[in-house]
Amino acid sequence: MKIIQIVGYKNSGKTTLVNQLLQKSVAYGIRVASIKHHGHGGKPDGYENTDSELHRKSGAIIAGVVGENAFQLTTTDCWELPRLIPIYELFETELLIVEGFKQEDYKKIVLIKNKTDWKLIETLSNICAIVTLLDVKKNIDIPVFRYSEIHKLFHWIMKTV
Amino acid sequence: MKIIQIVGYKNSGKTTLVNQLLQKSVAYGIRVASIKHHGHGGKPDGYENTDSELHRKSGAIIAGVVGENAFQLTTTDCWELPRLIPIYELFETELLIVEGFKQEDYKKIVLIKNKTDWKLIETLSNICAIVTLLDVKKNIDIPVFRYSEIHKLFHWIMKTV
Repeated sequence: MKIIQIVGYKNSGKTTLVNQLLQKSVAYGIRVASIKHHGHGGKPDGYENTDSELHRKSGAIIAGVVGENAFQLTTTDCWELPRLIPIYELFETELLIVEGFKQEDYKKIVLIKNKTDWKLIETLSNICAIVTLLDVKKNIDIPVFRYSEIHKLFHWIMKTV
Repeated sequence: MKIIQIVGYKNSGKTTLVNQLLQKSVAYGIRVASIKHHGHGGKPDGYENTDSELHRKSGAIIAGVVGENAFQLTTTDCWELPRLIPIYELFETELLIVEGFKQEDYKKIVLIKNKTDWKLIETLSNICAIVTLLDVKKNIDIPVFRYSEIHKLFHWIMKTV
């Protein structure tokens, strides 16, 4: 399973880019999946719903609900990202797009929207490409893509990751 | 991992019994988890929420969201129950309580609330115990528990399943 992280500061366009990459992957018949941090703080939306919430309150480490060909799993026994990855492997995912989780060490595409964002490059590990609208510093020796180059970026991911 | 199904007709007390068994398991330090059918028809409550819904609409086979030490996974790539079980194994579940899924073949406790419910016994596989308030037919050769005998039922599950 290929794993690629899309990281960047708030409002750098992560969600849009992830959705574009998901759509492009589907167009090429790739079994693609995603994982992200809940952007608004607190637990994921819809987390505290009826029966499965009751099950968790009763102490279930995982509460699963199946309905209309959909499966929803919630857990507070939440491990670090690397220990959640095997779930995606169970579903025979070919490409996992990770939105955020800056401190993890998977291959990363960093979104640079503003000049002040360049400092991200210094602090993160395993950066493989940059997506930006800015002029690029000459000392960058990794591929640089424009936000509009989704097609090119997708093929780079499939070839490189 | 022990797997036990709690099955019965609507309003036979499945949800209450499952919650009582979850609580009892936790009291004994068991890593317990649950899976159930969404009782009200349609997709699980809270399924169509913000960003992860967007990811699914873009074609993600799984959309995962992490927030405040909680993990929520939703998928429409929903397999049959036996293929969801390995997820619970990944979380090192010791006891999985399955609410409903009558047609599956795991060990079952059948809830008999009304006399007309006895016909369930004829149609289901792998019935190991009965929970009822009714007088029991003499030709039943499996253990019978009262709804109030949660403690006894829990220990029977841990010993037998």
